This record gives sequence, structure tokens and C-alpha cells, in this order.
Amino acid sequence: MGFHVDSEVGRLRRVILHRPGLELKRLTPTNRQDLLFDDVLWVRRAREEHDGFAAVLRERGVEVHLFGELLAETLDVPAARAYVLERTFDEREYGPLATDHLRAVFDELPTTELAEALVGGMTKREYLERHPEPVSVRFHVMDLDDFLLAPLPNHLFTRDTSAWVYDGVSVNAMRWPARQRETVHFEAIYHHHPLFADGCGRAAPADGGAGGDRGDGFHLWCEGQGTHPSTIEGGDVLVLGGGAVLVGMSERTTPQAVETLAHNLFEAGSARTIVALDMPKRRAFMHLDTVMTMVDGDTFTQYAGLGMLRSYTIEPGSGGRELKVTDHPPEHMHRAVAAALGLDSVRVLTATQDVHAAEREQWDDGCNVLAVEPGVVIAYERNVTTNTHLARHGVEVITVPGSELGRGRGGPRCMSCPVERDPA
Amino acid sequence: MGFHVDSEVGRLRRVILHRPGLELKRLTPTNRQDLLFDDVLWVRRAREEHDGFAAVLRERGVEVHLFGELLAETLDVPAARAYVLERTFDEREYGPLATDHLRAVFDELPTTELAEALVGGMTKREYLERHPEPVSVRFHVMDLDDFLLAPLPNHLFTRDTSAWVYDGVSVNAMRWPARQRETVHFEAIYHHHPLFADGCGRAAPADGGAGGDRGDGFHLWCEGQGTHPSTIEGGDVLVLGGGAVLVGMSERTTPQAVETLAHNLFEAGSARTIVALDMPKRRAFMHLDTVMTMVDGDTFTQYAGLGMLRSYTIEPGSGGRELKVTDHPPEHMHRAVAAALGLDSVRVLTATQDVHAAEREQWDDGCNVLAVEPGVVIAYERNVTTNTHLARHGVEVITVPGSELGRGRGGPRCMSCPVERDPA
Amino acid sequence: MGFHVDSEVGRLRRVILHRPGLELKRLTPTNRQDLLFDDVLWVRRAREEHDGFAAVLRERGVEVHLFGELLAETLDVPAARAYVLERTFDEREYGPLATDHLRAVFDELPTTELAEALVGGMTKREYLERHPEPVSVRFHVMDLDDFLLAPLPNHLFTRDTSAWVYDGVSVNAMRWPARQRETVHFEAIYHHHPLFADGCGRAAPADGGAGGDRGDGFHLWCEGQGTHPSTIEGGDVLVLGGGAVLVGMSERTTPQAVETLAHNLFEAGSARTIVALDMPKRRAFMHLDTVMTMVDGDTFTQYAGLGMLRSYTIEPGSGGRELKVTDHPPEHMHRAVAAALGLDSVRVLTATQDVHAAEREQWDDGCNVLAVEPGVVIAYERNVTTNTHLARHGVEVITVPGSELGRGRGGPRCMSCPVERDPA
Amino acid sequence: MGFHVDSEVGRLRRVILHRPGLELKRLTPTNRQDLLFDDVLWVRRAREEHDGFAAVLRERGVEVHLFGELLAETLDVPAARAYVLERTFDEREYGPLATDHLRAVFDELPTTELAEALVGGMTKREYLERHPEPVSVRFHVMDLDDFLLAPLPNHLFTRDTSAWVYDGVSVNAMRWPARQRETVHFEAIYHHHPLFADGCGRAAPADGGAGGDRGDGFHLWCEGQGTHPSTIEGGDVLVLGGGAVLVGMSERTTPQAVETLAHNLFEAGSARTIVALDMPKRRAFMHLDTVMTMVDGDTFTQYAGLGMLRSYTIEPGSGGRELKVTDHPPEHMHRAVAAALGLDSVRVLTATQDVHAAEREQWDDGCNVLAVEPGVVIAYERNVTTNTHLARHGVEVITVPGSELGRGRGGPRCMSCPVERDPA
Repeated sequence: MGFHVDSEVGRLRRVILHRPGLELKRLTPTNRQDLLFDDVLWVRRAREEHDGFAAVLRERGVEVHLFGELLAETLDVPAARAYVLERTFDEREYGPLATDHLRAVFDELPTTELAEALVGGMTKREYLERHPEPVSVRFHVMDLDDFLLAPLPNHLFTRDTSAWVYDGVSVNAMRWPARQRETVHFEAIYHHHPLFADGCGRAAPADGGAGGDRGDGFHLWCEGQGTHPSTIEGGDVLVLGGGAVLVGMSERTTPQAVETLAHNLFEAGSARTIVALDMPKRRAFMHLDTVMTMVDGDTFTQYAGLGMLRSYTIEPGSGGRELKVTDHPPEHMHRAVAAALGLDSVRVLTATQDVHAAEREQWDDGCNVLAVEPGVVIAYERNVTTNTHLARHGVEVITVPGSELGRGRGGPRCMSCPVERDPA
Repeated sequence: MGFHVDSEVGRLRRVILHRPGLELKRLTPTNRQDLLFDDVLWVRRAREEHDGFAAVLRERGVEVHLFGELLAETLDVPAARAYVLERTFDEREYGPLATDHLRAVFDELPTTELAEALVGGMTKREYLERHPEPVSVRFHVMDLDDFLLAPLPNHLFTRDTSAWVYDGVSVNAMRWPARQRETVHFEAIYHHHPLFADGCGRAAPADGGAGGDRGDGFHLWCEGQGTHPSTIEGGDVLVLGGGAVLVGMSERTTPQAVETLAHNLFEAGSARTIVALDMPKRRAFMHLDTVMTMVDGDTFTQYAGLGMLRSYTIEPGSGGRELKVTDHPPEHMHRAVAAALGLDSVRVLTATQDVHAAEREQWDDGCNVLAVEPGVVIAYERNVTTNTHLARHGVEVITVPGSELGRGRGGPRCMSCPVERDPA
Repeated sequence: MGFHVDSEVGRLRRVILHRPGLELKRLTPTNRQDLLFDDVLWVRRAREEHDGFAAVLRERGVEVHLFGELLAETLDVPAARAYVLERTFDEREYGPLATDHLRAVFDELPTTELAEALVGGMTKREYLERHPEPVSVRFHVMDLDDFLLAPLPNHLFTRDTSAWVYDGVSVNAMRWPARQRETVHFEAIYHHHPLFADGCGRAAPADGGAGGDRGDGFHLWCEGQGTHPSTIEGGDVLVLGGGAVLVGMSERTTPQAVETLAHNLFEAGSARTIVALDMPKRRAFMHLDTVMTMVDGDTFTQYAGLGMLRSYTIEPGSGGRELKVTDHPPEHMHRAVAAALGLDSVRVLTATQDVHAAEREQWDDGCNVLAVEPGVVIAYERNVTTNTHLARHGVEVITVPGSELGRGRGGPRCMSCPVERDPA
Repeated sequence: MGFHVDSEVGRLRRVILHRPGLELKRLTPTNRQDLLFDDVLWVRRAREEHDGFAAVLRERGVEVHLFGELLAETLDVPAARAYVLERTFDEREYGPLATDHLRAVFDELPTTELAEALVGGMTKREYLERHPEPVSVRFHVMDLDDFLLAPLPNHLFTRDTSAWVYDGVSVNAMRWPARQRETVHFEAIYHHHPLFADGCGRAAPADGGAGGDRGDGFHLWCEGQGTHPSTIEGGDVLVLGGGAVLVGMSERTTPQAVETLAHNLFEAGSARTIVALDMPKRRAFMHLDTVMTMVDGDTFTQYAGLGMLRSYTIEPGSGGRELKVTDHPPEHMHRAVAAALGLDSVRVLTATQDVHAAEREQWDDGCNVLAVEPGVVIAYERNVTTNTHLARHGVEVITVPGSELGRGRGGPRCMSCPVERDPA
């Protein structure tokens, strides 16, 4: 029952989602940009839509783990709880006087309440409703509605914070402050939650050293928050299958993180080639999976406005830690991807639309589909043109509503973290 | 069957709405800010929501005129068609060589197609599909997907372009270029559509000169596009009733336009006092009705974050054209409104919420309700806290969905232009 | 002694400059962007630098007219004074009650004070120091330090507001509100100042109708503020010589204005070809002359970062009002310019620098030089690399200081309006 | 000859400045905002102005240490060189493959070249002119003009990176990435440069533990880059004298850093009270010393637009690590400062100007004067109104030019780091 993700489109067996909660109610027109959202969501409706998404997955035989439950169960483990509180309440953030005190106060919270506070945040006012004011200059100068603990609305996008690549997981350092505390939660889960600790002893690999391997059945390709600013986010990582990986070097995913990932994957023998794309460093092209995803073993859906990108094939070098990097001009982008897959060519589906309509559907996550098995994907219902185009080319499209969910600029792929998936 | 709006909350009898169409499909992440939208809409869903809104109005006995139909019927009148084409295709925009030619080409379109093009816009590519390229430097250098004729997505907000105040209408000069062509359409409708031409002869007033009076039963308080930059938009105008008017001086509504309105209303004897509020000049407080509307004869719903504003009472002066302006400090804002209504005080309903939640509901048009009779309002269903608060204080709240419509930052009041309403 | 500008680089005989004054003291960190400046200037130093610039011109035998003096002398003409006050105090800006009154108050000012107020602006506080408060809603709600009359700091750039092209002048409609009142001043000067009225009768051309010809020795290619939004600014217009004109279609200069200019020039027989460049629509490439100017009869200085642009050659068509437009791909830009000059090729001087240094000098107006005769240009001393490069290629460079002047993002060419210049 | 700063205005004896160099030539219109500058500087002129500033200090008997020389001398110490290279070339920035290699390459540079590269930065092109391409994905995907090592133009403002407070120095964690590497350089200098190592043995204090005390004659109040995001910058710290400190909590200086500073100062007995001001968190009010500095023992110069701020007096608490925090409403700001100085009141000099002129002089560092002894300050010549006002109130003002230097939004105080100054 090990965890592994051997492709983008093979049968999906297990996935982590996050059901929208308090953290999204904290979004306001004023703070939404700092929190990386373009608009505020109606949370009740977003939760209904998300429940529908989860139901579709379950109907398709996918086991759904909810992040909130995983986190709460993890916090029941004393070592995990201590780890999270240690990292969350840092003297550099809360000052020398109050940090220990705050940790102690939160440590007394029941697990469910603690989990909710960690994700949903807490204002000074809410804190003072139940506790006296600590001695702290920072606390003192805060306004009553300021956040003592900031909410983490982007937990919705479980894709990004940790990313499984073959027989290991990259627990990622996130690009922007609004998401950096998410990493702490996933570090605790993978190290301490029984689900992952259980798998731990069964398949200890022989290879030893590589990439933070913990000897518990799966590798750790990236060791989390300590690696910032070598950031990488799961939305930029596509597990092509057969030992190949496609990575977008975007605003959020750095070349040095790609190098680290390549180095660790190759050393463990878990992959043999990485194709890195030189993405535009703009919010509209936030992650690779907002403009290009995989819908079948040799088929991609791609945004018309993406254009062709410079790409680099990274392979093991002759020497020990060395890598070999091969450049490709923009017009060879698809050829480089095909070569990594061992194919002559790949099929790229892009609906013919005028530029305005195409830009709209990209914005609404038209390309951000989640395959549940080869040729079967989940998509937002609103992207009618793209969905129709996929269907016409033989892809089965299961639609889910996303009027509210979609306001976060993320679709079914962004909102899911596969932890077990077959080869294509 | 004259047109008149004698209050904000009296029985609503007739209203102009605009059913979402092609123009909203033109919104993209790139152009939305120039077009004054924060997000793109899913037009099919938006249209369903809008149909629901119209249905609720009809169920309440309100006669609904659709702007698109009014415009098409107006364009059947040759003088109206000539007027619109003359103003739409202006040499200063299209250049000396092609302007006449373009007018002629569009003049050959069937009325329905012309109406759709005027509102929905047309790209160079669409034009060239049916017509040869005209001699024109501007046309020549355009890209194929550039708009030859820009779309007018803000026609959705019929409230703003024309505003009825007692026995007349202000056809407004709009603040931003994205809305200025809307005025041309309403000028044509009010001057040429049979509905308004019909009412014309019946009640020719005796007063003669004032404010563009056309001797056809209703006054013209503002003469439209020619008055720019003396701009005023209907979202800033509340007909308090009993000869009083409340106006927000916002980013879009200027003091000089308020002065003109006051002058014309007083000269015609149609009003006797205007209270002008000094609004913050920020997009979040776009129009007065996004932060404060009326729900009953003496009752308002107001956004918690609005605070108290400086206000000015404007009344007829002793001399001929003179006005009397009285200042009020911020703390007397509500008292000034009450005085204009001849009351000791007004009731202001503001739900108790934390600042984050309150800011969210304002953003989602929580205050932007449309009264259909005293104490009965239409509101977006998503603003649960505000709606519940109103209901608890005896206001009947009819909810309509607005997941898509609401992305335009306008609610039921913004999307409706009452043309006939009783006193409160 | 007619006015005419027959080239970019022929002997310069007369020029209009504007000596920095009160209007630049009004720039603040808060208002500078609305007023189109990147930084505030130290006015005393800027004036010293400008005096130095004027002195250099005079030493070279150029007659310098100061705009401030021209304006004051023009305002001594009653018809001019009436025209300016009529356009400056517009009811749409000042409201129906106070406009006439304000005109009358300003009409009582001595000419010099009036000229200073028109250019330097006036705050409400300054007005109230000498006059009682008028009856006006707008005036009433203004803060004491708000501008009753906005300052016009961009008068410094006399190049843009009016542009002489061969035997006529284009009095331009300006793109942004901050400069639109400048046009009124130049309209008054050209129609009423004795300098221009004098030249008037001497050389009445035979051609009659074209382009606002006033029968007074020079043509009016553009009729000023009434033509907005068909905007064109002199910084985008280069008089190549020999009947050719080069125009940049920038953020501020529209294709329809180019079309109008072409039409009028051709009809009068004053030019025979226009090359229009498709400029990036960005502030950094504000006007063509910020990235490319002429230093000799066949030689240009060009910013390395400009790249090659699509260009269009516009010539008289076969029919009456028709034009012929020929496209050129980016790589033929210089060839198109050469062809307009009747040459096989032109010489383009671009200093070899790294991209950072080149971008810095463009920002500091490295290309914005003013030729006083063929091969002799005035440049800011700070652009050492560009100046050295020009000198090495045989161009004589006279440097002037511009530490303060340059903060306005304009160099010697921007700050000068030639009204008499020989062919090259 | 120990280092200590006992006041803001006592006789200044030694100071660290940084002479402008290559790093400022790297500023471009494109990168200036990331590098925290509003405009690009003409470096040759800026250097002349800076030399004049240094000359004035020397004439006044102040010993001037140049940062560039201190850094180069420090890099001659092997341990310092190793420390700097270790921190500069971090695997998280440069990737696992190339980091060691890059360190080794730079370690071979002569000291002067290394110092210049560390401050001035190096492009990929410059690197490749002398070295072969390393194996590195990051290096590979860089453009030739991208910075392998970013320039540090803000080293000009030596005030901020380290701040002496009585008998110790706070080596600061800087708020923005563009300045964070500056801290590494000052860490190396204070720990390894002979000047500071020399002072080291002479006055080893008895107190032992507090705040990173190194037993070498002066304390370390803040331990540098490791404390981020507990940031504090010297421009926000005023040494009032007599054991009092004034700190601005700005965009860049956090309450938790103030708490740490208070805690360490009190524990060492070096100070007895800190007044913290709640500054607007805006760039225009970047540091406290851009709006308020001290010109005599009881006299301040303050920007008219600053207004009154909430303040907090922080004193040692009764218990061990505890502090006592007392709130003051805005109107008591000056009273709180006076009380910290043991005075009944302080004198605050603010020139009477209209709001526009005052805003201009604040922008041009009108308040950012550097006292060389009580009542004698160095100021930019351009701020005539403020300078005249100070002179009229008995302050001797020595002016220096700053046409170019001032474009960095910093004046004489920002550009100086006093390391030895007498009490007032």
C-alpha cells in the first residue's frame, strides 16, 4: 500500500483535497491580493461545489483524504504538535517575550480547534475573547481585527504544497509569504501521520543518502521550508510517466529547485529525464498546469495563448553529481516533451477560439483538468469550448461546477494532490 | 401613463433592464480593467441569473423593458439610427477617410444586427469576414482581434446611464471612456422610441425653458454626452421622496453636475432640496448605492465601513439662479438626510459583523438592494448576514442568485433603471 | 520672414522655449504622476539649466521666443483674452453658477498675473486671499490647497503642443488631461499674437481650403483641442526634409491623427510622403524623439533598445481624398525611412553599451538631441556614452547640464519648438 | 578609543560612508523599483556630490571611514572572506551543483575586485568573459545581461544596515531582498576588520550574556540576517541621549525587533527607555529620519505632513525579561519624547509652507539632516525653505549639493553611519 505517482493520467487511486473553510471567509477586497486571490469567494457555495468535486472522485473509485482531517490527526501526535507550534510561533515573528507563551496557549487547544486556528487564522479580537493580553510589543500595537495568526486560504490548492513524483514526494518551499506556513503542515503530516508512518517500514530502499530519504518507503525530494528561496510548487510539475518529468520554471518555480529535484531523482534512480520549460514570469501564467495539462498518455490540452517556449532537457551527466543540460529552441518544445516520453510526437489539443474567448477560458482554468484515468478528466463546466473540444477528440470530460471555486484561479488539478496513481 | 420616479421605495411599476449578451463575452483578464470589471463572467450563467431577476420583478407586477429591445426598436426610426451612427462613428475616432464609409456600411445592417454590434462590439476580423478593408490608416494598423467597435459590457448597469428623478430624467455624461457610448443609446431611446415619444404630447408642462425640457411630459435634467466632464451617474442618485434627493459626490459624480441637477430641478419646481455627500474617491466606493440604499420610507441599509461623511444641503437661493449651500460635519450626515425628508431622524440598518465580513458583503453588493415597494427589497442571496439583518428588522428580502452577475460589482439596484415608481 | 520648418537638422533660426516657473513648483510626490512627471524638480536649478540652454541657442544665432512672454503679449489682445478665458473657464468644469463670475474675476487681472495663473495654476486658498467665495458647489467642496486652476508643468516641453511641418503648424490635441489646456494657449498665440498675425498677410497661398488654412502665410494642419481624441504630439513628428515626414504612432499619437495630417499636407502640396512607425504603446517610449532623432541630413541617433518597428508609407492615392498605405515588415524600417528621403540608406548611430547602460541613457534623454545645423546638436552632458559615440562619428555635440530638467523625461528636442528652420 | 554613539547631536567623531560606485550604474528604469530607487542617478556627478559631503565632514573634524575600503580590508582576513562567500553563494540561490564552484572562483579574485563584485554585482556576460560556464541549470537559463550577483545600490545608505546605539551596534536584518546581502558585509566588518577587532580587548564589559555581546568593547544588539523577518533599519532609530531611544515602527521596522532591541539594551543597562512611534506603513514615510530628525539636544525638525502619531513608551518591567509598555494618544507624541529625555517639552521646528511645497521638501530629504555637533547640521542645499527655517531658529545649516544623490530618497543622515559620537 505504498504511495507513489507514476504518471499524470494513469488510474488515480488516492488524493488529498482540502474542503473550503474559515480561511476563505477571511478573504476581503483589501487583503485578497496579499493572499494571492483575485476575488473573494462565497464560502458556503464554494464548499458545496467542492463537495461535488470530491463526490465525483469517490464515484470514480478514488479514495479522498481531506487535508483538514489529516492535519487534525497529525496534531494528535505530540511530536507533530510540538513541531508545528515551534515553527508557527517563531520568535522572529512574535518577539522574544510572547513567543513561548503563545505556543503554550495554543498547545492547550483541543486538536480540532488548533487545526482550525492554524488554517483559518485568528484575529487579536478572537484571541482576547478567551485569553488575557500577553506582554508583547507586537501584540500591543496590533489593531483588534489584525490577524495574530494569518489565514491560509491557498490550502485549497493542495497540488502545490507537496508534489508526488514517482516514489517520493517533494514538500515544497513556497514562493510567497502567504503560503509558506502551508509547508509546515505538510511536513508534519508526512513525518507523523499514521497513514504515512505506516507505509514507512515496508519498503525501505537500499539507496540511502539521496534527497532526504527517510527510509520509510518513499523519498523526500525536497525538504520543505528550509530550502527557500529555492522554491518549487506542484502546479509546475507534471509526472509524464516512464521516468520523465515536465517542469515549468515560472514565477514560483526556480531553476535551482529544478536542479535539486533532478539531482535527487536521478541519484535515487526514480527518474531519467526532466524537461524544463522557460515560462513567462507572470501571474497569468501562474503555474504550468494553468496553461498545459495532460489528458492521456500522449495527449495534452494547452492554452492557445501560451505559444511555444524555450525548453531544456536535463539528464544525468557522466560524472557523479553532474547533470547534462540540452537546449531546445521554442519551436521544438513539443518535440522535447515527446522525446522524454520516448515518442515521436505528442498530441496537443487547443480549441480554436478568438483570442478573447481563449484568454477567458484559460483564466477560468480551462486547461486545469484532472485526469482520473487515461482519457478521462474532470473539468469546470463553465469552460464549454475547451470541454467540447476535448470531447470531440475522444476525451471523456466529467464537469463540475466552479462558479465560486474558480475565483481562486485554480481548477480540479490545482485542488488535488494525488498520492497514489498508476502508470498510464 | 407618464414616466416619473417619485421615491426610492414606493411601488415600482416599470423598469429598464439589460439582458447580458455578447458584450460580456468580450471581457478578458487583459481588458477587464479598462472595461471597469474586476473579473470575467460566465455569460450563460449570468444570463440565467438575470432572467431570474427579471422574473422576480414581473411576479411582483413590475413591467420590465429590456434595453436591447428598446435600442433595436429605436434604431428602426431613421432619425434615431442616423443620430446613433453619427455619434458612434466620429471622424476624430475613425479618421477623415473611413468614417463616412463605416457609417454607411453599418447603416445597411438589419436593425437587430446593428443593435448587437453597437452593444457587443465588433473586431477587425469580424468586419473583414463580411466587408472589404476600407481606406484608413487606423483600420490598417489594427490587429485582427482588436475592436473596431468596442463592446459595452457596462450596459448591464442600466441604473447609471440614465436616472429618473421625479418628473424627469438625467441622461448622464459618464465618467470613464468605457461607458461613454452608452449615453448615445439612451439619448436615442428617450428622444425617438415610441414608448417615450407617445408619452410626449400628453402632459406638456407650462414651465418651458428649464433643463432641456422637451415639452413631452418629462424633463431632461442633464443633456447627455455633451456635458462631459460634468459627469454624474445614476448609482450616485437616490430619490428620497417628497422633493428631496440624495447624491453622492464620488469618483464618478462631480460637484458641478450636482449643481446643474439642483439648478434644473429647482427651476422646474420638481425638487426642493438636495443633500450631497462627500464620498471617498475610490473604486471600492464606486457609487453611493454600493454602500447605502433605501429600503423603506425612513430606513436605509448602510455599509459598516462607510463611516460618516461630510454633507451639504443645497436649496434654492433667494436670487434667480443662485443656490444656498449649507455644510454639515460628518457626524450630522444622517441628520441632514432626515431633515431633507422632513423627519427628525432616519433608521440606518448595518449588520454587526467583523470588519472582514462586512467588507466582503459590501464588495458583493450587500447594500445594493432594489426596493419593489416600501419594506420589500430584492437582494443577492450570497449576502446572508446583511439579508438576515434586514429581515430581523422587518424588511422583506427576496433573494436572487448572483454568482456571476455579482462579478461586475453591481447588485439589483445597479442593474435596474426605474422609469415609473410611486411615492413611498 | 515667414515661419516654416523645412527639416530636422537644417540651420535653426527661431524657436519657442518655456522658462520653468511656478507651475513646476506645484509638482509633488503625490500629484506628479497625474501631471506626467516621474519626479519633482528643484525649480531654481532647473531655471538656471534652462537659461543655459537658451544661451547656447542664442550663441548659435538662434532667436529664442519665450512662451511665457508670447502668452502675456497675446493676452493683451482682447479677442485672445476672451478666447482663452472662455475655454479655460468652462461651465462643464466649473458649474453653471460660477463660471461667468470666475471669467470676469480673472479678466480683471493684469496680463502678467493672468499669464502666470493660467500656466502656474491657482489654489482655492490663493483665490480666497484676494476674492470672496463665489456661489458654487464645486468651489465649496474643494479643500483649501486644491487647485481651482491646475498648473501646466508640461508647458516646458514646447515641442509637443504645436509642431511645425514645412509651411504650416499642427496645433495639437493632447492625449492626457494634464496637457489639454496647453493647446488653448497656443491656439491663442498663433491666431492673435502680432508675431504671427504680422506674417499673416504676406504670403497668402493660392490653395484655399486645406486643413484650416487661414490665408496668413502658414497652414494649420490640425485645429487643436476640438479634435480630441484624434491626438498627435510634436515629439512624435520628425520633419525629414524634402517633403517627407516621419511620425511615431505612440501612446499619444493616433493613426487617425496621422491620417488627418497626411491628408492635409498632401492636399496643400506641402509634403509627399509620410512614414508612420508602430511604436510600443508604453510610457518609456513616450514619443518617437525619446528613442530616435536626426543629427544630420541622412543620420539618426537611435536607442539600442528600440528594436525594429513595423512601418507604413503613406502617400497620396489616385483618387481625391484617398491615400495609399504600404506596409513594411520591422526589418525594413530604416529602408522605408531612407526611401522617403530619396536615399538608398540612412546612417543610424547607436552606442554599444550593455543593456542596462543603454536603458539608462535613453531614460535620461540620450537620443533627445536638438540639431542647430547639420551635424551639430545640443545634448545633456550626463549622457556621456551616447555623446561620445556621436562625436566619434563626426557629430559636434554641444552639452548642457540637465540634472533637474532631465527629471521631466525630456531633453533639448522636447524643450524646443522650432518655428523657422532651413532645409538640411 | 572605543566605539559608541551617545546621542543624535553631540560632537560627531567617526562615521562610515559609502562612496557611490558601479552598483549605482546598474540602476535602470526597469529595475529601479525592485532595487528601491525612484530614479536612476548620474554616477559621476553623484560621486562628486558625495565627495563634497565627505569633505565637509572632514573639515568639521570627523574621521570618515569608507565602507568600500573597510570591506576590502575585511576580505583580506581569510575567515571573513570565507564567511562572506559562504553567505553570498548559497545553494538555495545557486543550486546544488554550482555553488561550491562559484565560491571557489570568486575566492580567487584579488580582494579589491572581489569587494567591487560583491557591491557592484556581476552579469552572466561579465562572468563568461573570464570564466567557463559552470554546470548549473540556473546559470544556463539566465540571459547574458541578467545578474549572476545582484548589485547593492543601497549600500549608499550606510545609516540603515547597522545602527550604533550607545555602547553597541545593531547589525540589522533588512526588510527587502534588495538590501539583505548588505548585512553580510557589515557582519564581516564588525567581526573581522582590525579597526573593530582592535577595540575589542580594551573594554570587555562585565555583563556577559546580553544580546550577542562579544566581550570586545561593544555590544551586538541585533545579530543580523538570521533574525529576518524581525527587521529593523537604522533610519528608524534615533539615539535621543541620556539612555533614551526613539524608534519608528515603519514599513521596515517591526515591533518584534523593537522588543528585541529594548530587551537587549535594558539587560545590558545601556538604555532605560524607548519611545516607539506608530508610523504610516508607506514608502513615502520610509524611515523615521525621512520625516523627523534631531538638530539639537531638545530640538527636532519635523515634516509638516507627518501629523501626530500614536506612541508607546517601553521600559524595563518589574520581572526578569518583562517589559512595561505605556500607550500615548497621538496628541501626546511630543510629550512622550520629552519625557524620555527628562524634559518638560521639546522644540519642534516645522517650516510654514503650503502643503505642496512641504511635501516636495520632505521628498527631497528636507528633514534628513545630519548633526555634526549640537545645533550644527548638514543638509541638502535644495531644501531652501526648511534650511532657512532652521537657520532662523538658531540652527547652523551647512549645505551640500544633492541633485543626484537625492534621487535615492536619502539625505545626509541616511548616507552616514556614526560609530563614535559624544553625548549632546
